Amino acid sequence: MQAVYNIAEICARHGITDVVLSPGSRCAPLTIAFARHPEIQVRTVPDERAAAFIGLGMAQSQRRTVALVCTSGTAGLNYAPAVAEAYFQQIPLVIFTADRPPEWIDQLDGQTIRQTDLFGRHAKGSFTFPADTSHPDAKWHSERLVNEAINLAEQFPAGPVQVNIPLREPFYPKAGEELRFEEVKIVHEQAGTPTLPPGEAASLAHKLRKTRRVLVVAGQHGFDKGLLLNLHGFAAAYQVPVVGDVIANLHQPVGGNAEAAAAAPLGHQDVFLAGANAVLKADLRPELLITFGQSLISKALKLYLREFAPRQHWHVQAAGPVADTFKSLTRIIRLEPATFFKQMLLLDKQQVAHLIPAEGPLAGLAAVSDATRVAPAPIPLGWPIHTVESTSEAAYVSHWHRAEQWASGLLADFFTVPPQAFNEFTAFYSTLKTLPDHTALHLANSMAVRYANILGLTNRTIEVFANRGTSGIDGCTSTAVGAALAQPDRPVVLLTGDVAFFYDRNALWHNYPLPNLRIALFNNHAGGIFRLIDGPRQQPELEEFFETHQPLTAENTARDFNLRYFPVSTFAELESALPVFFAPEGGAALLEITTDSATNAAFFEHYRTSVKTAFL
Amino acid sequence: MQAVYNIAEICARHGITDVVLSPGSRCAPLTIAFARHPEIQVRTVPDERAAAFIGLGMAQSQRRTVALVCTSGTAGLNYAPAVAEAYFQQIPLVIFTADRPPEWIDQLDGQTIRQTDLFGRHAKGSFTFPADTSHPDAKWHSERLVNEAINLAEQFPAGPVQVNIPLREPFYPKAGEELRFEEVKIVHEQAGTPTLPPGEAASLAHKLRKTRRVLVVAGQHGFDKGLLLNLHGFAAAYQVPVVGDVIANLHQPVGGNAEAAAAAPLGHQDVFLAGANAVLKADLRPELLITFGQSLISKALKLYLREFAPRQHWHVQAAGPVADTFKSLTRIIRLEPATFFKQMLLLDKQQVAHLIPAEGPLAGLAAVSDATRVAPAPIPLGWPIHTVESTSEAAYVSHWHRAEQWASGLLADFFTVPPQAFNEFTAFYSTLKTLPDHTALHLANSMAVRYANILGLTNRTIEVFANRGTSGIDGCTSTAVGAALAQPDRPVVLLTGDVAFFYDRNALWHNYPLPNLRIALFNNHAGGIFRLIDGPRQQPELEEFFETHQPLTAENTARDFNLRYFPVSTFAELESALPVFFAPEGGAALLEITTDSATNAAFFEHYRTSVKTAFL
Repeated sequence: MQAVYNIAEICARHGITDVVLSPGSRCAPLTIAFARHPEIQVRTVPDERAAAFIGLGMAQSQRRTVALVCTSGTAGLNYAPAVAEAYFQQIPLVIFTADRPPEWIDQLDGQTIRQTDLFGRHAKGSFTFPADTSHPDAKWHSERLVNEAINLAEQFPAGPVQVNIPLREPFYPKAGEELRFEEVKIVHEQAGTPTLPPGEAASLAHKLRKTRRVLVVAGQHGFDKGLLLNLHGFAAAYQVPVVGDVIANLHQPVGGNAEAAAAAPLGHQDVFLAGANAVLKADLRPELLITFGQSLISKALKLYLREFAPRQHWHVQAAGPVADTFKSLTRIIRLEPATFFKQMLLLDKQQVAHLIPAEGPLAGLAAVSDATRVAPAPIPLGWPIHTVESTSEAAYVSHWHRAEQWASGLLADFFTVPPQAFNEFTAFYSTLKTLPDHTALHLANSMAVRYANILGLTNRTIEVFANRGTSGIDGCTSTAVGAALAQPDRPVVLLTGDVAFFYDRNALWHNYPLPNLRIALFNNHAGGIFRLIDGPRQQPELEEFFETHQPLTAENTARDFNLRYFPVSTFAELESALPVFFAPEGGAALLEITTDSATNAAFFEHYRTSVKTAFL
Repeated sequence: MQAVYNIAEICARHGITDVVLSPGSRCAPLTIAFARHPEIQVRTVPDERAAAFIGLGMAQSQRRTVALVCTSGTAGLNYAPAVAEAYFQQIPLVIFTADRPPEWIDQLDGQTIRQTDLFGRHAKGSFTFPADTSHPDAKWHSERLVNEAINLAEQFPAGPVQVNIPLREPFYPKAGEELRFEEVKIVHEQAGTPTLPPGEAASLAHKLRKTRRVLVVAGQHGFDKGLLLNLHGFAAAYQVPVVGDVIANLHQPVGGNAEAAAAAPLGHQDVFLAGANAVLKADLRPELLITFGQSLISKALKLYLREFAPRQHWHVQAAGPVADTFKSLTRIIRLEPATFFKQMLLLDKQQVAHLIPAEGPLAGLAAVSDATRVAPAPIPLGWPIHTVESTSEAAYVSHWHRAEQWASGLLADFFTVPPQAFNEFTAFYSTLKTLPDHTALHLANSMAVRYANILGLTNRTIEVFANRGTSGIDGCTSTAVGAALAQPDRPVVLLTGDVAFFYDRNALWHNYPLPNLRIALFNNHAGGIFRLIDGPRQQPELEEFFETHQPLTAENTARDFNLRYFPVSTFAELESALPVFFAPEGGAALLEITTDSATNAAFFEHYRTSVKTAFL
């Protein structure tokens, strides 16, 4: 078993410190090796589906590889939803699946399936550990392939990798036997940062300068200060509006002066595009679209850009497959987004050296002082923004910023003047407003992430996470739990609906305290989303086969898992619960906000109508 | 969408009446088609992992194909554990996974993964429905492939088949629009029953008659009266002991006379092989082993037959891959087991016509009146059974029957004289004794199925089910729930441990009453099995990384799902609860039997020692 024990040492030497284990007999040598390794912390989670999403949440929040360990049989298949999410969200996981040795596959033995390449096209790779490492070449192979697996998981775009480990009995060291970790083979892989040759970069910058209507759209992306600095500088220098969903984490503060603020990213596209008429849509239409990052939430933005398609679409991504989200892709730029914006900015700087500020966070990069880029004045609600002159580049940029400002004004008024009745959306608005500083905010699929994307975040210290690789509801709670375990000093808040919450209750079924976790559960006793969209609510099957009424409240779940429980169903109750719920002391808590699905649907319709009529 | 609606009609025409649906938007056309089909009953289960096992339980208990329907994305991946179980347990499932059309795969759209061939080597096949059925050939293809999928799922060995269905918007018919089902193409497939050519059958019968020590071992098999009649006849005619685990369902009554009773199958191999010494083991050794059915539970039997290997091993299975469970496989006989035993029996009958009884259930088949096959006299406990003369064939058969009788005597005495202390094993014994007649007994992995296999069933009306295709704990409750839904007039009893139970709690998260379901939960607050086996209990990691102490009781779960709740922790409480718990009135109920893992381990050790020392 020495070669198996050495896996823990190789992981540790690669900087893997967190292992999520689901107990079993076949995986005992791995369990013992990881549990006894001094630099590795093993956490035990019995439900493998939850375990894998917890591992994903840990890797996502720490931006480091996490290892999963499970026993043979269907254990590993329960990882599959999280593995697919990790694949599409580009999160590095190394998955060690214990297996029977090859001669015992398909021999009707217990907990034996066909584990080779278990995750198919949702893993970056699948390795098979040698069943016998007594030959020196096999020993070398065993160490080499663990290195290869970790390096593959971490290569951009990162993702999940399986290492299948056939194990023969005996699985256990003798009672009292010391385990030692040998000197192991380590292959470190270092990634270079690609840059464009100066000529090519200049050519792109030239194209950019010649293009009058440029738009940047950011897909899902973790907070990255370096990227934001370069992006803000780029936006200011080239007079480019930047649009991003709440999961793009563009709202995070990077410091900045007035010019940078004028180039601040926009996030209310769900609102201003929802009811915009054709004239406004034409005014907003870009000639050149530049995108980076992963998926978008905003269906309004996707539909808009597919209809009002740019003539050119550049996507910036260092490696990996590229989606043609808007059907208009014309150029793939193999750079990291930060590098791209910086290269463009430096070229611009050379051209417009007089614009570079001497101090401030953008000093040394670039900024602009052009009067057209000063923040536009507030616009009264109902003001017909499409009547702004739309002939110039400046007017184009102004349209985007005015639309954004109009939307945030509309939302502020809509939710406060006059005070709206209590329902899911209004309760969500109130909850979102009171999130603690520096929260790691986890937004569950399906309505939570949509509400948040409509409303946006005013607290710029918050970082947003959501499983938008596959947009499943199956592991949202577990992912938040993983984040809470990985970063115990940071408040982790999950906003979720009842179907996602009860689906993944086993996220809480383990023995690790979660003092920093707060779960706000919006319980409408159904998959209420189906009442909010047009097709299903007109079908006689709505209640039984789409919404699926479910009667659970979270009270018993809170009791089972020792969560402080705050049930509310009025604004007064919510307002009085929120400060206690979010207070850092007291430990894990669950706020259950009960609403009625039909009321929610009526209010959401009212909201949509208000947005549309406000534009008239 | 007409081609999609027609899927429901094709299913109905193939006799599929049960659909388990997990709601989603992409699958709406399938939802509506199945929900509106007059011959199909759709049940909605939100957690796809549970939904798939519920479907499996319905198919398993009714021995009919069940269809599953889910939306796109990771929904289908949550089916994977049940699909693997269905594959190895040979249960027909047709799985309709809604998908985006091919042009939208890998385009960062929500709930989009790579669904083609989603289950890899754990499905019998994967079909792709045409995205566009406007061309008549595509329409023909769409109908043909659904027929092919159903036929493939049902062909022996049965199993799961995926049909991936790309769907473009709009998903919903207009409000009030009538749905019609067209005349559809139906391809029925009828299986012939293979028989051996008379010459080959005679040759096998000749070999059988010349072989002095033959043993039949039955793997997992549903109750089959025809098979048992032929098997009993064969065993009597050829003087062959028949051994089967509790999941082989050999204990079911088929009627019979004294001769047939003498050839009754044995089921206590876990007991008499556990401590048998080398002399007894040699006495029991077969020359020729004949097997049929699927997996074995009894590790003692597997290890015994691997060590005391027969010279020949014939496995009888009409089609599909064959395992070499004992490393001694020499012949694969491509017949249904019932056909094999009947063909051998008829040949024997021709040779020994004077032995055929004129009446009784074996009349027309064959039986024996040979004095050596009369049931052996009871053996006192501790009687050294290996001293029986072991020179003749009769002695060989007698050894098996005496061993069985010795084991059942030992168990009866062990559990009653003197009364043992309350613990998991003794509580299990009491519960098993009081099962209602005609119970569909579901045994969860991991200890429940082992306890039951040690103890055996005295109530011969009970049919036994267990997920021994992959032996996972992940869907044991859901499978029992599926059985309870499919056969509401039959008591369905699940015996389960706490890890399996809490793992699969979402089995109960739906809106369908389960008046016939009884769950007896043996809660030792851990994966207590790890304390019962030698390796892990000697490791310092036992409690945190193997057993995984978990503090839950089922009280809150019972409250959440409206189960009558009977918590017991003494014999007195258990004895008074059992009659009320098992009574047919009152609806779904949960009996929680709380024991202590360390006490259980000590008692199990005591049991094992008793078995071993009794042989000395």
